[in-house]
Amino acid sequence: MSSVSDAESLVLSSDPLHPANLIPELCRGFYHLGWVTGTGGGICIREGSIVYIAPSGVQKERIKPTDMFVLPYPQPTEPSPHTDRVFLRRPKQELKESACTPLFWNAFDLRDAGSCIHTHSQHAVMATLLWAGKEFSISHQEMIKGVRIAGTGKALSYLDTLVVPIIENTPNEEDLKDSMAEAMKAYPEAAGVLVRRHGVYVWGNDWQKAKAQTECLDYLFEIGVKLKLANLL
Amino acid sequence: MSSVSDAESLVLSSDPLHPANLIPELCRGFYHLGWVTGTGGGICIREGSIVYIAPSGVQKERIKPTDMFVLPYPQPTEPSPHTDRVFLRRPKQELKESACTPLFWNAFDLRDAGSCIHTHSQHAVMATLLWAGKEFSISHQEMIKGVRIAGTGKALSYLDTLVVPIIENTPNEEDLKDSMAEAMKAYPEAAGVLVRRHGVYVWGNDWQKAKAQTECLDYLFEIGVKLKLANLL
Amino acid sequence: MSSVSDAESLVLSSDPLHPANLIPELCRGFYHLGWVTGTGGGICIREGSIVYIAPSGVQKERIKPTDMFVLPYPQPTEPSPHTDRVFLRRPKQELKESACTPLFWNAFDLRDAGSCIHTHSQHAVMATLLWAGKEFSISHQEMIKGVRIAGTGKALSYLDTLVVPIIENTPNEEDLKDSMAEAMKAYPEAAGVLVRRHGVYVWGNDWQKAKAQTECLDYLFEIGVKLKLANLL
Amino acid sequence: MSSVSDAESLVLSSDPLHPANLIPELCRGFYHLGWVTGTGGGICIREGSIVYIAPSGVQKERIKPTDMFVLPYPQPTEPSPHTDRVFLRRPKQELKESACTPLFWNAFDLRDAGSCIHTHSQHAVMATLLWAGKEFSISHQEMIKGVRIAGTGKALSYLDTLVVPIIENTPNEEDLKDSMAEAMKAYPEAAGVLVRRHGVYVWGNDWQKAKAQTECLDYLFEIGVKLKLANLL
Repeated sequence: MSSVSDAESLVLSSDPLHPANLIPELCRGFYHLGWVTGTGGGICIREGSIVYIAPSGVQKERIKPTDMFVLPYPQPTEPSPHTDRVFLRRPKQELKESACTPLFWNAFDLRDAGSCIHTHSQHAVMATLLWAGKEFSISHQEMIKGVRIAGTGKALSYLDTLVVPIIENTPNEEDLKDSMAEAMKAYPEAAGVLVRRHGVYVWGNDWQKAKAQTECLDYLFEIGVKLKLANLL
Repeated sequence: MSSVSDAESLVLSSDPLHPANLIPELCRGFYHLGWVTGTGGGICIREGSIVYIAPSGVQKERIKPTDMFVLPYPQPTEPSPHTDRVFLRRPKQELKESACTPLFWNAFDLRDAGSCIHTHSQHAVMATLLWAGKEFSISHQEMIKGVRIAGTGKALSYLDTLVVPIIENTPNEEDLKDSMAEAMKAYPEAAGVLVRRHGVYVWGNDWQKAKAQTECLDYLFEIGVKLKLANLL
Repeated sequence: MSSVSDAESLVLSSDPLHPANLIPELCRGFYHLGWVTGTGGGICIREGSIVYIAPSGVQKERIKPTDMFVLPYPQPTEPSPHTDRVFLRRPKQELKESACTPLFWNAFDLRDAGSCIHTHSQHAVMATLLWAGKEFSISHQEMIKGVRIAGTGKALSYLDTLVVPIIENTPNEEDLKDSMAEAMKAYPEAAGVLVRRHGVYVWGNDWQKAKAQTECLDYLFEIGVKLKLANLL
Repeated sequence: MSSVSDAESLVLSSDPLHPANLIPELCRGFYHLGWVTGTGGGICIREGSIVYIAPSGVQKERIKPTDMFVLPYPQPTEPSPHTDRVFLRRPKQELKESACTPLFWNAFDLRDAGSCIHTHSQHAVMATLLWAGKEFSISHQEMIKGVRIAGTGKALSYLDTLVVPIIENTPNEEDLKDSMAEAMKAYPEAAGVLVRRHGVYVWGNDWQKAKAQTECLDYLFEIGVKLKLANLL
């Protein structure tokens, strides 16, 4: 008989690259980038059929491995207003499931992503207000090469125009699920989805690629905003 | 006979979440956010009837647990020009009581807060100059959801307009006590009070919520300023 | 018989100033300056006839000494479309050689540099768009004194005008080699080369001087951009 | 016979608050504030008749206690073109004396300061260009209260106008000595001197006060620049 339950062993590891250890470390970094202040934003990592997600409404720079929710992918039954999500492990404290969960699921279902990051970066929010229509686009920037087609395909070229669809925000984060899914289908090459007055969702094959692409997109939102304000775009 | 006095034991703990340990750690973080440079700003934490406050006029990123003032709440007698505050513990060094103390007390008395944060953030100061009237307001920003009604109630909705009253600065910080209290009564749903050309006071049920709300409000001041300067607001 | 191969010993050292240890440390610093986010940018260090280069396409703030490529300088044969580069040591993982390698080589061949740094700093990119011609120039700034003539000569004076040529970006980073070399010949006193919509290459006699000059140039790009936007330049 | 010479013992201490330990720690902090990048800027601490100064032309975020120059105050003979400064201790490496030394000396001679800080902060430089005349001034900012009259006297009030004289830059930093001294005499209440297109010198009774005042002044330069650019000043 082991000293910790099977469920607990899902988040206990001495490997710093185990998702339960990585997510807190990455969130500390995101906090200092201004992506997840005020408990906003987050990251999930999927390793095959196991998904690790940080809880909602907590200080992202202070989460611990034992704060993680662990879910099976796919879910045994499609969650709906009538069925709850199934968890492999829930934290003991009265922590709430992330409201981002259904949106992260879009990245798994529609792009077979291994990780998805959600930020409230001000560069993303400013971009959704300076690009008033349904998409943000920018071209002729080296950092475009750091973004992959559909988020999980081959890298864009310097000659490509990067396009990120923008959806309208809703009072409840979960309600973004359908419009985000629609945008992902309407823009099958998009590596992320902007949410007006809110932030951005970015995914990749694994956490390294999701993180690198979030950095590239955030850089492009930031420089796009600077260029617009300087009348250079 | 114990080796440390009862008063000293109020600030000596091996628990990193003890207020005497937390306040120095949080102040280091606030320093790097530009909230408490030049010895300005600060934070207090109240646990039931015991209040912990960092001293005035010291480098906030270098304070130590033994620098803390500890006060009873409520005070045995209402402090006035003729009565001094009562302390459970004072630091040995010739440190001065925080000039913010009466303002922090407003948050306890009028909102039953468990923590109050004061910053000199430039975003707050710029907001008080771009919003020239008696209040800052912003709507349709996701980060509004991170702020609670009255600072201690339920969370605002994305559809709510966030309003923070602005009071005029005074030469002596203590003299803000009455106008801050008036603003808190005039704006019973406000989660903080801006002080023109000075900064902001934000409170919450506990330090976690006070800190998260300070981050959300600071984000909203910052993006509000950016939007005004870009003629988007 | 030693326990590690001769090739491996090239990157294993307990000296924190060994290039294989320094490059990861410096890259962590560059990441926090916004120079190498999204896996972009990098640094190489040459000690005599041995060159250390970080791999391509990895998170620069997380590289390890064992991720380094080590190359002989000069190469036994001039690399061309028909000959590959020779390595003294390659990392075991499936890491890719840096696309910056031929550009770093320009700094060795044309300036006898001991180190070259490539950043994607937004200050550099903004400078290439606000200076629309073939060069960035600025005068009467103290920080000009931190830059050396040709990158490896004596320091510029406060009375000198700093000039950095700007070349046009290409879809493949390697293809910048010839235009960068031409710019270095056309501007024999230049300490770096800007790449429009991409970033900057800066070199120096050793890593300390390359880093200090990159900081000075980045400062000058940043303040130049601010002055232009404020109509002060 | 001791194992280290008396001169060496001047920089060897296990006390983190010893000037030889403090200066490297403070310089690391200043580096991350953008005050001393590219080897620029610095700090000196005087304890009675002993002055500790970091060397010139080195990466300020990487200096070590053994890199310190230690000088007697006052100097046995007034340094001139014909007499060199006297040192109590010089670092063994071929490090150069700071070009700021004569300027730091102004703060000792004219204000009896215990510490002086020199930054190349872009906020200071921008302030010298947006305030085109002989002085920077700002009023009605809470942070003014963090600055002391003459740098070493009593604190300014919120109702006071803060004035910092601006002198013109010279090709050789040492040549600023006389114009800085003149400005300090012409503005006997000034807590610092700005150098156009260069940076600022700020002093205080001790390193804590010099640092706090440098932070306050830097904050005031930054917000002053923002207000000018927003047409609010």
